[in-house]
Amino acid sequence: RRTGLPEVIYSSGKTVKQVAQIAKRMYQNGMDILATRVTDAMFDAVKEVVPGAQYNPLAKTITYKHSEKKTGKGYVAIVAAGTSDMPVAEEAAETARFLDQKVETVYDVGVAGIHRLFHKLEVIREARVIIVVAGMEGALASVVGGLVDKPVIGVPSSVGYGANFDGLSALLSMLNSCASGVSVVNIDNGFGAACQAALINKLN
Amino acid sequence: RRTGLPEVIYSSGKTVKQVAQIAKRMYQNGMDILATRVTDAMFDAVKEVVPGAQYNPLAKTITYKHSEKKTGKGYVAIVAAGTSDMPVAEEAAETARFLDQKVETVYDVGVAGIHRLFHKLEVIREARVIIVVAGMEGALASVVGGLVDKPVIGVPSSVGYGANFDGLSALLSMLNSCASGVSVVNIDNGFGAACQAALINKLN
Amino acid sequence: RRTGLPEVIYSSGKTVKQVAQIAKRMYQNGMDILATRVTDAMFDAVKEVVPGAQYNPLAKTITYKHSEKKTGKGYVAIVAAGTSDMPVAEEAAETARFLDQKVETVYDVGVAGIHRLFHKLEVIREARVIIVVAGMEGALASVVGGLVDKPVIGVPSSVGYGANFDGLSALLSMLNSCASGVSVVNIDNGFGAACQAALINKLN
Amino acid sequence: RRTGLPEVIYSSGKTVKQVAQIAKRMYQNGMDILATRVTDAMFDAVKEVVPGAQYNPLAKTITYKHSEKKTGKGYVAIVAAGTSDMPVAEEAAETARFLDQKVETVYDVGVAGIHRLFHKLEVIREARVIIVVAGMEGALASVVGGLVDKPVIGVPSSVGYGANFDGLSALLSMLNSCASGVSVVNIDNGFGAACQAALINKLN
Amino acid sequence: RRTGLPEVIYSSGKTVKQVAQIAKRMYQNGMDILATRVTDAMFDAVKEVVPGAQYNPLAKTITYKHSEKKTGKGYVAIVAAGTSDMPVAEEAAETARFLDQKVETVYDVGVAGIHRLFHKLEVIREARVIIVVAGMEGALASVVGGLVDKPVIGVPSSVGYGANFDGLSALLSMLNSCASGVSVVNIDNGFGAACQAALINKLN
Amino acid sequence: RRTGLPEVIYSSGKTVKQVAQIAKRMYQNGMDILATRVTDAMFDAVKEVVPGAQYNPLAKTITYKHSEKKTGKGYVAIVAAGTSDMPVAEEAAETARFLDQKVETVYDVGVAGIHRLFHKLEVIREARVIIVVAGMEGALASVVGGLVDKPVIGVPSSVGYGANFDGLSALLSMLNSCASGVSVVNIDNGFGAACQAALINKLN
Amino acid sequence: RRTGLPEVIYSSGKTVKQVAQIAKRMYQNGMDILATRVTDAMFDAVKEVVPGAQYNPLAKTITYKHSEKKTGKGYVAIVAAGTSDMPVAEEAAETARFLDQKVETVYDVGVAGIHRLFHKLEVIREARVIIVVAGMEGALASVVGGLVDKPVIGVPSSVGYGANFDGLSALLSMLNSCASGVSVVNIDNGFGAACQAALINKLN
Amino acid sequence: RRTGLPEVIYSSGKTVKQVAQIAKRMYQNGMDILATRVTDAMFDAVKEVVPGAQYNPLAKTITYKHSEKKTGKGYVAIVAAGTSDMPVAEEAAETARFLDQKVETVYDVGVAGIHRLFHKLEVIREARVIIVVAGMEGALASVVGGLVDKPVIGVPSSVGYGANFDGLSALLSMLNSCASGVSVVNIDNGFGAACQAALINKLN
Ligand SMILES: Nc1ncnc2c1ncn2[C@@H]1O[C@H](COP(=O)(O)O)[C@@H](O)[C@H]1O
Ligand SMILES: Nc1ncnc2c1ncn2[C@@H]1O[C@H](COP(=O)(O)O)[C@@H](O)[C@H]1O
Ligand SMILES: Nc1ncnc2c1ncn2[C@@H]1O[C@H](COP(=O)(O)O)[C@@H](O)[C@H]1O
Ligand SMILES: Nc1ncnc2c1ncn2[C@@H]1O[C@H](COP(=O)(O)O)[C@@H](O)[C@H]1O
Ligand SMILES: [Mg+2]
Ligand SMILES: [Mg+2]
Ligand SMILES: [Mg+2]
Ligand SMILES: [Mg+2]
Ligand SMILES: [Mg+2]
Ligand SMILES: [Mg+2]
Ligand SMILES: [Mg+2]
Ligand SMILES: [Mg+2]
Repeated sequence: RRTGLPEVIYSSGKTVKQVAQIAKRMYQNGMDILATRVTDAMFDAVKEVVPGAQYNPLAKTITYKHSEKKTGKGYVAIVAAGTSDMPVAEEAAETARFLDQKVETVYDVGVAGIHRLFHKLEVIREARVIIVVAGMEGALASVVGGLVDKPVIGVPSSVGYGANFDGLSALLSMLNSCASGVSVVNIDNGFGAACQAALINKLN
Repeated sequence: RRTGLPEVIYSSGKTVKQVAQIAKRMYQNGMDILATRVTDAMFDAVKEVVPGAQYNPLAKTITYKHSEKKTGKGYVAIVAAGTSDMPVAEEAAETARFLDQKVETVYDVGVAGIHRLFHKLEVIREARVIIVVAGMEGALASVVGGLVDKPVIGVPSSVGYGANFDGLSALLSMLNSCASGVSVVNIDNGFGAACQAALINKLN
Repeated sequence: RRTGLPEVIYSSGKTVKQVAQIAKRMYQNGMDILATRVTDAMFDAVKEVVPGAQYNPLAKTITYKHSEKKTGKGYVAIVAAGTSDMPVAEEAAETARFLDQKVETVYDVGVAGIHRLFHKLEVIREARVIIVVAGMEGALASVVGGLVDKPVIGVPSSVGYGANFDGLSALLSMLNSCASGVSVVNIDNGFGAACQAALINKLN
Repeated sequence: RRTGLPEVIYSSGKTVKQVAQIAKRMYQNGMDILATRVTDAMFDAVKEVVPGAQYNPLAKTITYKHSEKKTGKGYVAIVAAGTSDMPVAEEAAETARFLDQKVETVYDVGVAGIHRLFHKLEVIREARVIIVVAGMEGALASVVGGLVDKPVIGVPSSVGYGANFDGLSALLSMLNSCASGVSVVNIDNGFGAACQAALINKLN
Repeated sequence: RRTGLPEVIYSSGKTVKQVAQIAKRMYQNGMDILATRVTDAMFDAVKEVVPGAQYNPLAKTITYKHSEKKTGKGYVAIVAAGTSDMPVAEEAAETARFLDQKVETVYDVGVAGIHRLFHKLEVIREARVIIVVAGMEGALASVVGGLVDKPVIGVPSSVGYGANFDGLSALLSMLNSCASGVSVVNIDNGFGAACQAALINKLN
Repeated sequence: RRTGLPEVIYSSGKTVKQVAQIAKRMYQNGMDILATRVTDAMFDAVKEVVPGAQYNPLAKTITYKHSEKKTGKGYVAIVAAGTSDMPVAEEAAETARFLDQKVETVYDVGVAGIHRLFHKLEVIREARVIIVVAGMEGALASVVGGLVDKPVIGVPSSVGYGANFDGLSALLSMLNSCASGVSVVNIDNGFGAACQAALINKLN
Repeated sequence: RRTGLPEVIYSSGKTVKQVAQIAKRMYQNGMDILATRVTDAMFDAVKEVVPGAQYNPLAKTITYKHSEKKTGKGYVAIVAAGTSDMPVAEEAAETARFLDQKVETVYDVGVAGIHRLFHKLEVIREARVIIVVAGMEGALASVVGGLVDKPVIGVPSSVGYGANFDGLSALLSMLNSCASGVSVVNIDNGFGAACQAALINKLN
Repeated sequence: RRTGLPEVIYSSGKTVKQVAQIAKRMYQNGMDILATRVTDAMFDAVKEVVPGAQYNPLAKTITYKHSEKKTGKGYVAIVAAGTSDMPVAEEAAETARFLDQKVETVYDVGVAGIHRLFHKLEVIREARVIIVVAGMEGALASVVGGLVDKPVIGVPSSVGYGANFDGLSALLSMLNSCASGVSVVNIDNGFGAACQAALINKLN
């Protein structure tokens, strides 16, 4: 495709029926399927029409690949600060895998207990591109950016309350990162981060 | 005094003449003098009427103490992320010293080069209370908060541009700190942080 | 622990089952338990697996201590403006007690009827550290800060409507306090305020 | 006049020449003159064409009345928190006097030193209407509102920095006042507050 | 009472039981009762314990007066822009009546059909104080302010959607009114506006 | 041209020299010239290279037309609330004339003195399209929109201070207009309003 | 009518019964009926009292015309970026048709796949006025504005999440359009855009 | 270096003397020099101590390389919407070249005249990574993202006025891009975009 990225079903605002219909059409046309922001009910409907469809209830994704092949020279590392950030991180992981990327995940390494991050540094440093998901103060993106020589894509999550303003604090934090190799996508946009990571890792 | 804190001259919005007059009156009444947010011209005027007045051009403070004595059981650590944060950190340092505190400063240990922070960890950990000044993403307060068992007072600085919105990013970051022992004062308010630090360190 | 603060269960966004499982594991490991932001259903599940667990339905906390001991030289005063601010104040009180602090609470002393505050001034002034919870215009933190010589930690509450913007008015108010010894934590963050208060009161 | 309020010159954004010309025309037409937000240069120009024009450099107002008479049954009290709020308070005072009101001013009674307010309570309580000017956290309006049985008009001032956001903190504070008899005008709008106060005090 | 205003029940965030209990206690103590922001269920519970309690389902108020008497020399006019603004206007009307004021209401006179306002101008102009409720662009406060010589209290309502931002557009509009005799209370705060109007109309 | 609108020089952020060079090139190529947001110095430079260039110092525009012709069936009415809004209104007027439109201007008809608007209603109603410029509360757009059966384009101006937030109050006001035929352009964008007005009036 | 636009039922915040009653009254008075923001239940109630009433469940509109006639010289083009923007686009379409306009719709032509827009350019260019509905980054309004010589009315939709802030991103985008013939209405206000489009297309 | 990026002088907030001293020290230590956000006076001082230093007055950068070598397999394309965006684009270009990247620039291809973009599509598509600089509505990033299969880094510029809010409109626009391969850096942060682009292009 022109943009290097296949068609994807963004299920938010769609009915169960609409999602199942689109999935069925894509399945019948021999297309691979990724649906994000799905509900349990959507999976129940899709699995009737797409045998073998996979559901990741944490990521809120449904995937179906006609065949598996991994591209990209190395892997995408997905790093998440807290357990509450895992849904966004998993959306990124499912998307990256759907886009034929190898993925390594490193979760629960937020800056309030930074020794946990250091224990996992090797696997982060050896990735070709790194996605960092963090809510609240979003500091993890800067800390990781200062420890690696690879591009870092920050995903601010909406985890938090009060002056978090639904993810604004993490978003501003990441945009103002004092580490120079960090760029940012929309709040909770694990999907978009994985798309860019895949385009990067496909470079050869 | 009722609040445990002496009178201080906040020079912003005052004329050179007003600052000099207040300083002179305080000097003649035997009061110690702290003026914050001063200009060079203010110091030129004050030193005429308060012999021995000290000027810290980075902190933008003038101080005069009739006698020195240090109170508090230990010291206040003042930690700053970048060199641009030093004026705010120095305002805090001058204020804390004026309030009879011992002070240790640890500068240029921002999270984009976190090894520099670890080299200085001992002096930070042994303080009784810690002030952390950081602009841009303000992540340093959370990182320090996760490494120590002492109260941490975050001072967001207005250092940065664009989506920094004059310190808002660091402010929100610190308010949403995932480290639990962190509280926050106004943007660039080194003075206020030092006041609270002094009240804490005076506890016995 | 490295940070002076034990592990705590933040229940918001967790399922009843997850909270009960974590509580059970902690109980079996001989750890004390504090869960914040719980629901009635969570307590019903936890009390099955943690005999003797205590529920504070106003604070929305579950606590269990293997043994009681009070540390800190004096007590933490928790001052709240209105009855609607009591949930946040009680979260702070439960957290402080869990962290082995003696606590005195002074509720319903908002600035619109300031004589009520003056009737309780003695117990506030004799604390070693003071938490002030207030919503709407959040003025109580400044008023208390101007009457005591102890550190004051302001907790803006989200109580209000309209131009309150979910606690923003009280937050900005407290950050701009004209009383110098006041610092601030996130909106509704009684937990965080108590953590810092405990770290302060543990100083000796 | 239809609105009970005479024409006034709002000098901001006008040239020295324009202000002088309007003043001259009004003088020649036998009209009383109030110009707000003036500069020194404007007064120099106006006094050439309006003999007897009065300048209040703190209030930044020029006034000229063909004859003096006081209306209203009692007086307007103008209460200001800090010395930096005095320009706004003086704009209100000059405007109220221009509108034929008796005025009592009570300055430097901010909430961080609330005993000063109590010393002046009598003169505030006996006014028929009260204007309260305060910047930073703007708490004074609520405190006064809780102590009197007269209408209180809050004027948030832009005094402050950082999270003050040019007066936003005081504005939101006053709008969320927990005292019920308080209304609010625009940031720094001493003029508007005095206009409403005059309309109130003219009621008989 | 010290503030000229009696105790009132703000029912938002209270349970049906709590509201009924407070109402009962007040009734038994011979106090008049005003409860705002009530639900149908609250009235069902209150009428069991307070015989003769009145419910205004549009205003969401319950009132009970042991005896009626009207004070104030004239009446309070309450002007509302659209039918959607009527709940806020009625909260103001019920509150003003509870505070012993005579009230005249003028509804559905928004600026998009300004001739309707002119048909009602007489009753507005003859009031001693005017409350103007308007959502969306809130222009009605300025228009009324320019047509009368009495104090105008603007109540921005949250009626609207999109860039209305829950009442922010009307709030800013009224704060920036080009008519000089206008002050403002919080979004949807019909209660507060009526309190100030009563304090004004009680002046003699 | 494809968009129906010729090339225009937006001078903000350009040097005097750059503006003069572009103007000269356009002149030599036989193109008509409109430069907006110019300074006096820019006109001094342009008139050297474009004989006959016209300067409107209030509008901050330079214009040069090789020949005059009026198109459009009727005229564009440009209505402004206050004298301070005239620069924006004049930018619109100069732009509309440059785009070959007949223009009628109606100034100083703000809603605080609404009778002045009614005196001019005829000329407004007979236009084919109406531009309304207003700052502060921006109410004029709604009032005009409710009185005419022609498209109204609102231009919020940045005139005001405090809670005006550089034009935000008027912008939100106009976007939330309760009059249905009103659309809006950017703050102070007289140019853009005139472009759309010209496209509308050129319809036949 | 004075404003060229008939009365319309804005159903948001009204009960099923209220909507049905108003519709019935209008029907009996021989008026045409347009109700926006309706629910399924509202249509069920309206069709009982208005035989022949039409429901567009996507647009959330009910319409009834006593007779059909098309006015305006050409047609209104309604262009929408994504399928999620279709409800807003359909509200515009139903409103325009109700106002006797011919309408052409061009959906699913967002800028991420700009070739789809180019395939439909002819029908857009030949309209007399164009409504562009887009959420997320709202770029479509600028792109269309740069390709046509007709007035473009942008409708920012609230489609999106995170830093979309309920339509703010598309709103600001359209207000800052670098294409000069673009004006904007409120977020999701398909109704208002169609009103202005009808007023424009009725010009002759 | 650990982060893959050398030390750089961020000159904003530094004095001429400080910049010259740092540059001299780096030169003497055999380090390459990049100083961003410089002034003319800074270059005058630096060229005295660093013979051969290069100044790009549009980019506001000073560079000095001890030797030139290009790394990366292909080139970085830098695309800018308008001429006012060129300073930010040039900061990116200078930074990328300093980081040993080949660079192709494509300027003045904003969406209001989208045919200009299509003329340059080949050179954009063949880059390995693309930086897009755009102010105002920032739509260019989405349009480019939809036309290429390479990672796109958006740099919102602060070019614009009014509801542009110093770059906020372009920032939100790019964060909400409907094209999936787009990430974003801070407003005006050409430097940061180039850092990430270099890290991407160095992948092999
Ligand atoms: N009410 C609260 N507000 C803010 N943070 C909390 C609260 N309760 C617990 N926490 C923090 O959240 C951590 C647990 O987060 P989690 O791992 O997501 O359960 C605890 O260790 C505390 O630091
Ligand atoms: N300081 C002020 N703040 C707000 N409005 C003012 C002020 N001074 C005067 N005004 C108003 O501005 C009007 C004059 O505006 P103008 O016609 O622009 O000079 C006066 O009639 C007053 O209503
Ligand atoms: N979807 C809509 N968005 C904005 N305004 C609308 C909408 N539908 C109707 N209106 C306006 O609302 C008015 C009716 O308001 P109401 O009197 O509250 O029913 C109509 O005359 C229209 O001007
Ligand atoms: N234009 C720029 N924008 C953002 N960050 C920059 C810029 N130029 C340099 N930097 C960063 O600022 C650091 C130097 O900061 P400092 O120590 O304050 O001089 C460099 O190492 C870069 O990471
Ligand atoms: Mg890095
Ligand atoms: Mg800690
Ligand atoms: Mg104190
Ligand atoms: Mg009162
Ligand atoms: Mg008036
Ligand atoms: Mg109209
Ligand atoms: Mg066009
Ligand atoms: Mg792409």
